[in-house]
Amino acid sequence: MSTNSLWAGRFTEPIDDLTLRFTSSVAEDGQLYREDIAGSLAHAAMLVRQQILTTEEGEQIAAGLNAILGEIESGAWTPSWRDEDIHMAIESRLTAQIGPTGGKLHTARSRNDQVALDERLWLRRAVGDIRAALAELQSALVDRAEAYRDLVLPGYTHLQRAQPVLLGHHLLAYVEMLSRDDGRFADGERRNNRSPLGAAALAGTPFPIDRAHVADALGFDGIVENSMDAVSDRDGLLEFLSAAAISMMHLSRMCEELVLWSTTEFNFVRLPDAFTTGSSIMPQKKNPDVAELIRGKVGRVYGSLIGLLTTMKGLPLAYNRDMQEDKGPALDAARTLTDSLRILAAMWRRTEFNRDRFTTADMGAGYLTATEIADYLVRRGLPFRDAHHVTGRAVALAQ
Amino acid sequence: MSTNSLWAGRFTEPIDDLTLRFTSSVAEDGQLYREDIAGSLAHAAMLVRQQILTTEEGEQIAAGLNAILGEIESGAWTPSWRDEDIHMAIESRLTAQIGPTGGKLHTARSRNDQVALDERLWLRRAVGDIRAALAELQSALVDRAEAYRDLVLPGYTHLQRAQPVLLGHHLLAYVEMLSRDDGRFADGERRNNRSPLGAAALAGTPFPIDRAHVADALGFDGIVENSMDAVSDRDGLLEFLSAAAISMMHLSRMCEELVLWSTTEFNFVRLPDAFTTGSSIMPQKKNPDVAELIRGKVGRVYGSLIGLLTTMKGLPLAYNRDMQEDKGPALDAARTLTDSLRILAAMWRRTEFNRDRFTTADMGAGYLTATEIADYLVRRGLPFRDAHHVTGRAVALAQ
Amino acid sequence: MSTNSLWAGRFTEPIDDLTLRFTSSVAEDGQLYREDIAGSLAHAAMLVRQQILTTEEGEQIAAGLNAILGEIESGAWTPSWRDEDIHMAIESRLTAQIGPTGGKLHTARSRNDQVALDERLWLRRAVGDIRAALAELQSALVDRAEAYRDLVLPGYTHLQRAQPVLLGHHLLAYVEMLSRDDGRFADGERRNNRSPLGAAALAGTPFPIDRAHVADALGFDGIVENSMDAVSDRDGLLEFLSAAAISMMHLSRMCEELVLWSTTEFNFVRLPDAFTTGSSIMPQKKNPDVAELIRGKVGRVYGSLIGLLTTMKGLPLAYNRDMQEDKGPALDAARTLTDSLRILAAMWRRTEFNRDRFTTADMGAGYLTATEIADYLVRRGLPFRDAHHVTGRAVALAQ
Amino acid sequence: MSTNSLWAGRFTEPIDDLTLRFTSSVAEDGQLYREDIAGSLAHAAMLVRQQILTTEEGEQIAAGLNAILGEIESGAWTPSWRDEDIHMAIESRLTAQIGPTGGKLHTARSRNDQVALDERLWLRRAVGDIRAALAELQSALVDRAEAYRDLVLPGYTHLQRAQPVLLGHHLLAYVEMLSRDDGRFADGERRNNRSPLGAAALAGTPFPIDRAHVADALGFDGIVENSMDAVSDRDGLLEFLSAAAISMMHLSRMCEELVLWSTTEFNFVRLPDAFTTGSSIMPQKKNPDVAELIRGKVGRVYGSLIGLLTTMKGLPLAYNRDMQEDKGPALDAARTLTDSLRILAAMWRRTEFNRDRFTTADMGAGYLTATEIADYLVRRGLPFRDAHHVTGRAVALAQ
Repeated sequence: MSTNSLWAGRFTEPIDDLTLRFTSSVAEDGQLYREDIAGSLAHAAMLVRQQILTTEEGEQIAAGLNAILGEIESGAWTPSWRDEDIHMAIESRLTAQIGPTGGKLHTARSRNDQVALDERLWLRRAVGDIRAALAELQSALVDRAEAYRDLVLPGYTHLQRAQPVLLGHHLLAYVEMLSRDDGRFADGERRNNRSPLGAAALAGTPFPIDRAHVADALGFDGIVENSMDAVSDRDGLLEFLSAAAISMMHLSRMCEELVLWSTTEFNFVRLPDAFTTGSSIMPQKKNPDVAELIRGKVGRVYGSLIGLLTTMKGLPLAYNRDMQEDKGPALDAARTLTDSLRILAAMWRRTEFNRDRFTTADMGAGYLTATEIADYLVRRGLPFRDAHHVTGRAVALAQ
Repeated sequence: MSTNSLWAGRFTEPIDDLTLRFTSSVAEDGQLYREDIAGSLAHAAMLVRQQILTTEEGEQIAAGLNAILGEIESGAWTPSWRDEDIHMAIESRLTAQIGPTGGKLHTARSRNDQVALDERLWLRRAVGDIRAALAELQSALVDRAEAYRDLVLPGYTHLQRAQPVLLGHHLLAYVEMLSRDDGRFADGERRNNRSPLGAAALAGTPFPIDRAHVADALGFDGIVENSMDAVSDRDGLLEFLSAAAISMMHLSRMCEELVLWSTTEFNFVRLPDAFTTGSSIMPQKKNPDVAELIRGKVGRVYGSLIGLLTTMKGLPLAYNRDMQEDKGPALDAARTLTDSLRILAAMWRRTEFNRDRFTTADMGAGYLTATEIADYLVRRGLPFRDAHHVTGRAVALAQ
Repeated sequence: MSTNSLWAGRFTEPIDDLTLRFTSSVAEDGQLYREDIAGSLAHAAMLVRQQILTTEEGEQIAAGLNAILGEIESGAWTPSWRDEDIHMAIESRLTAQIGPTGGKLHTARSRNDQVALDERLWLRRAVGDIRAALAELQSALVDRAEAYRDLVLPGYTHLQRAQPVLLGHHLLAYVEMLSRDDGRFADGERRNNRSPLGAAALAGTPFPIDRAHVADALGFDGIVENSMDAVSDRDGLLEFLSAAAISMMHLSRMCEELVLWSTTEFNFVRLPDAFTTGSSIMPQKKNPDVAELIRGKVGRVYGSLIGLLTTMKGLPLAYNRDMQEDKGPALDAARTLTDSLRILAAMWRRTEFNRDRFTTADMGAGYLTATEIADYLVRRGLPFRDAHHVTGRAVALAQ
Repeated sequence: MSTNSLWAGRFTEPIDDLTLRFTSSVAEDGQLYREDIAGSLAHAAMLVRQQILTTEEGEQIAAGLNAILGEIESGAWTPSWRDEDIHMAIESRLTAQIGPTGGKLHTARSRNDQVALDERLWLRRAVGDIRAALAELQSALVDRAEAYRDLVLPGYTHLQRAQPVLLGHHLLAYVEMLSRDDGRFADGERRNNRSPLGAAALAGTPFPIDRAHVADALGFDGIVENSMDAVSDRDGLLEFLSAAAISMMHLSRMCEELVLWSTTEFNFVRLPDAFTTGSSIMPQKKNPDVAELIRGKVGRVYGSLIGLLTTMKGLPLAYNRDMQEDKGPALDAARTLTDSLRILAAMWRRTEFNRDRFTTADMGAGYLTATEIADYLVRRGLPFRDAHHVTGRAVALAQ
């Protein structure tokens, strides 16, 4: 039995099988089953509280939903792509198990506000994971900064040696970037943390529901005021993807440096064996694969951002099916960023710097102290531009 | 046993498990198992022909590979993410089944040229599927153009009624777009259809291989001449993604029109029930979901294109691990485009136009023939700009 | 005289002319001349305060800079692309006018922190303009919502008529979107509003500067702590571009609706003549060009976002010349968004709705009240799914 | 006088000034004035030939257009943004100069097919320039390959030293990439080189025009068959932008290598002074600015591609004003790519390699010959995997 019987009253023939497979979102929204069940439990409790359902109906539904949660987590039941989406899958399962009362769960709610709710709950969890992973990576960087607190390495601009800097100072620049990332995720989450439930399809519902109560029970800071906005908006995911894209960009810069620093030519760091791989043909190779792969995965996250921005372009209000394409990019970006942060944290903790590459003699190569000399001349009274010119000539002659 | 023992001679500790999972590409390149085995069979045959392997070794390897192909297709054996990638998975499996001779398959080859080979073989197949699906959709459009050969509908510019056009003329505009798409895929495939095998890691191999023979055996038009180019280039996939993005853009326009045409306001078409869905809350709804979803999926394909372009940006020669991120976007775009084309073809064949919406009276609404009147005045001697002005005033007065 | 004499001490031949033109950024950063001069004035004042410059030198520099500001604003002097960038242009001009003291302005500062400063000052101004324009558009929408407070129009999902909604409710959904946009710009600006000055090239400066004082004088909330981060970070612009992309997406949706609503078929609104254009060939046409163009310009802003994200990918610390490509996208996006918001505000204020399209009879078309009927059946005791099925069948029969 | 009087018959108030500025495209399409005039000359000649205009009218128009061309090139007259677009600007100018006959030029044509024509003519020229510049760069690379034909440098994978390669081999990998770029531009141009003129607004024209004759006179290979396709299609520009994006990606890789190779650490090349710049604060610096900037500009071109793809998404047929946003990205990408290719060609010709960095001893660093050893062991009978393992262990012990 296909679940489309849930809306098929108006239709004279069943959905085409190719179409069902193409339009099914279970592979993606199936990952939100916990959020879907949590939302349904809160919705059912409110329906009882508002006397829209009886206490007995509410208990039946809650027991049924909890049983389904157990089934999914134990693997005893797996939603199928034939179920169209996770919402239909769970509701069908519920009705199959507790009978017609299952059909009452959807009272005063639509898939449109249900999807929006699940996504906001999921995003809250994903942001929490990412913020924890950002802190892990910051902690690993601070750990390295402390372990090598005395190390001076060449600072670069244009990848040319510029001025000596403390390694700790260099690493803490990344800690700052990650702090801003954290701020962006936190700000976005503040905007996201409002309950859309009660918007129904787009126009609210005539049932005497209590939106604020459900919002509170689910840990939201309040409700989305406008019902058309509630079901047609995907700002939360877009803001999340933007923050994720910027954060992955930061990681791509860090990884570029790790790749450079592990070359024979720079030879600044030794990456731990456990985070590198070898070559199938060249026995001597030890490749900084993790750093390369994270650098490469920035493409994936940029792609997800531009993908959802494109999908949302030009859509009239309110809900359009195009918007089903929102979960894939968000899920993929969350996973990619969280994993990247965690692996980098673990790798950094065991990354060692080659102290013998940072001797005073090494710092001399590249005329790193020329700026100091020019500054000295300034303090002796030369205009900066003249001091710069004189020092520049001296470097040219020395070469 | 993890397959990384295949390159682990230089390493003192095993790869971190989190890293292995993160860096594993089996979920993606596992879809290229047929290409991988076909390439290995051709490579082994050449090694025998060049007396690098004995005939017996070649036979053992071929039998082993064919057995593995059978295992995968029957589901008897599934490559695991622990195997790092499909190439390592199959080679380990081969060695487990035929013993040390399995290790000889990789003679005179590297994963770098092997990956490049598999991708080119896969792309050839994907392009073939897409071109067939393009033809299917063109055929369905021509079928509708013929079925409604007499129907005149308003032509629009700026979505304002402009001039009457034949429905067939309108539909054939899409046939033209799809023809150009076909041309782009064909041109790209011509550039793609060259064998990279023999480039090895980046510098070729000292073994006396016969690159041209393998290329010919695998149906290529020739070889990629430069070995560094052969392993560092992903142009074929990028050109494919570009063509796919443009083609999906065409479909997004067609789907926009289908969505518009099925509104209560336009009411031009009746989409077949089998390709639409209903609402979980509004019983009267019949939604053009397939058209919306395809329009939405253009984001996915744009994202894949920009994703791989980003990944490739700024990579030094030759192979870098970042490039592993190439298969996901290509596989996803190929699947999305092929499915979209096929579903649209099937849907178009059963789409009906509402003839009673295209009467002469309807064509009058929106002053569709004003251009004709202006042109008539020109033929009577008025400069076009004056004729235009006079007719414009007449329309303003009529309103 | 080319300004590259400012750094040419080390060089034996002048810069190639083609290269100079290609690398010159005056066309873009020339738009930041006010910020550049304001920053230099504050820097010079601090140098005096810290006794790095004498009072007299400070006065000479301040007078010179103010004179240059006047020259630029009056058009008496225009920075040339031959000056490399606006910073070099102004400094050369200063030295030409006040003599060698002009060269002392650059003491304890580098172009790297100077550029970062100018951008942060510019961004603060641009965000202020955009937030004012967002408020203008919100106000125009509220005005329309009030003017048509009694109007009921069909609410759509999937562009199919769904349920009746108040026009005001529909318009206020956009007001909500714009409020979130405002919040995003405000949050980004809070992160942006810190002074990078004093970071110099990347490693700070040995001069006894007072970073906090300059920051305060320029209206910043504090300083960017880490000098390497200060010169290598472009997060402010990226976060701005992300917010701009999301905001333009909102406008593209609004414009799609305006285009739809002005068709012959929908015929919901009459756009003011002053904001539409005609056809060069079809005299009857009145095209919603402004709405179309704004919808089209979303591409421009998405492109700017992905452009700068791409540019920043994989850059090692600290400053790299690639980052010069940051101003074009930001300037273009700020202009596009501000203009779009302002024009939409002006257009909305004079947009009229066709009241005779929103009669009770019209609302009947499309079975808009079917959900109400299903809800009624639920209140009589039917499970929602059964009520939905019964109503759906009724609609199918009616058609 | 604003040119919108050309279509203003239907309008009761003039266009809003802010709107006029916002919608004006003169800044962009003004760069296509040569194409616009060439197209008009051919169109007028055909109208005469078909006896739609008299010979005398045709001569007046041709003389007027040629005079305007002269005025623009000499700077005697500059189209203003108040003219809406270059087409209106030139037509108004023509009428101002030759009187009402000027108004007859637009007979049997619309701005829709006129714009499409100008773009195709421009694209043909832009592609010609780019293909010449590609050849220049290829020639410069071949020149360097020959000048250093004996030089062996380390080949890299994962930026780890892998196997020795000839410098010439490395440089010729780029020559191959550029050849594919050339092929893509040529294939796109073949599809582009068809005349859309005669499509008029979207539905052709009742005048007895000769489309093939105009096409031939303008050097096209034929006509665009379908009139709706002719005015609604921007495939030529999109295919061009795709090819430009891939080509810029190639350059970004080359520039990454140039940046790496000019570091103190690699120290492989000496870039010519004329193509590098210094630092405003660090006198010793010689920065590879051109390479960095080209690498950075890849973002600009990716942005242009995604921008136009976004703009075209979901547009119903035929022409929509959104499409005016097509010229900016195309013009910018063409200029960026052509300049980048030319500057790189000039820079490469004077780039020198540091021969003393490529001695046999240097090649030893990084165990570059380990693959050779493993291959040797294979030729002595070891399975490749065992030979690989043994050599890997040897490297680990040596370290």
